[in-house]
Amino acid sequence: MEIALRAIGAIRTPFAASAGTPIQSRYAQGAEGTVEIFDEFAAGLRDIEGFDRLWLIYLFDRAVEAQLVVRPYLDNAQHGIFATRSPARPNRIGISSVRLLGVEGTRLTVADVDMLDGTPLLDIKPCVPEFDYLPVERVGWFEGRFAQNAVADDRFEQR
Amino acid sequence: MEIALRAIGAIRTPFAASAGTPIQSRYAQGAEGTVEIFDEFAAGLRDIEGFDRLWLIYLFDRAVEAQLVVRPYLDNAQHGIFATRSPARPNRIGISSVRLLGVEGTRLTVADVDMLDGTPLLDIKPCVPEFDYLPVERVGWFEGRFAQNAVADDRFEQR
Repeated sequence: MEIALRAIGAIRTPFAASAGTPIQSRYAQGAEGTVEIFDEFAAGLRDIEGFDRLWLIYLFDRAVEAQLVVRPYLDNAQHGIFATRSPARPNRIGISSVRLLGVEGTRLTVADVDMLDGTPLLDIKPCVPEFDYLPVERVGWFEGRFAQNAVADDRFEQR
Repeated sequence: MEIALRAIGAIRTPFAASAGTPIQSRYAQGAEGTVEIFDEFAAGLRDIEGFDRLWLIYLFDRAVEAQLVVRPYLDNAQHGIFATRSPARPNRIGISSVRLLGVEGTRLTVADVDMLDGTPLLDIKPCVPEFDYLPVERVGWFEGRFAQNAVADDRFEQR
């Protein structure tokens, strides 16, 4: 069964290529971008200004073909793609939590962007800690591998 | 531009219809389910057993057509769809954080499921608080509207 989606807008960021792009919002040092929603979806933004953070759900449109086993940015060992946040996924969906700075019509100004400029946007959901921040103790191979200011290289980008 | 995705598996849960289904993992009271990954993606699960929680990204396949303004389960007022977690979205993508109880081949046993039985799975990502739990103070119209054991009704389900 094929599932057909359409972009609802595009994400504009300072990052034209993977090399040098933050690997996560957490390491984006507040990098600013804009979320431009197509006019036909404008009504869906009502009341969005009340939220501090939004989940952006988007397509890793410039990622390489799916790799089921990858060597992710934060480790030298290989791991299954579903145990990583790598973009080389069977369905190339990314999720990032960005901080909402302002809303002007169909244009959201946001901080902590970690995606490439022009990334197709699929959905926006409000980030609600009561729902989303459930207790976690074990983070598998990530344990002890976190880094400040971590940036990507081009290993997962189409040539 | 049409974006074509394919299910990587299916989520089995105790919930056959929206009415009575938890509206969020947070309110699922530990309800158990299984995630059945198609064999061709089995290699992608390597090392997944190290994680407490997983983000499941899936399709709300039985949701009604998109509504840009909705009356969500937790409020009597209307809000823009992107300011809610309602399934009646332009791209019917859902995200839920479930607790991983066990892995047996391509079958994951999980708790805190809040989706319908047979839901098409699009992606699995490890839940990593260092990345995902960024500070949030303002949660818009949700403020003061959280409920324990909140369950859905059939307002967003196809007839």
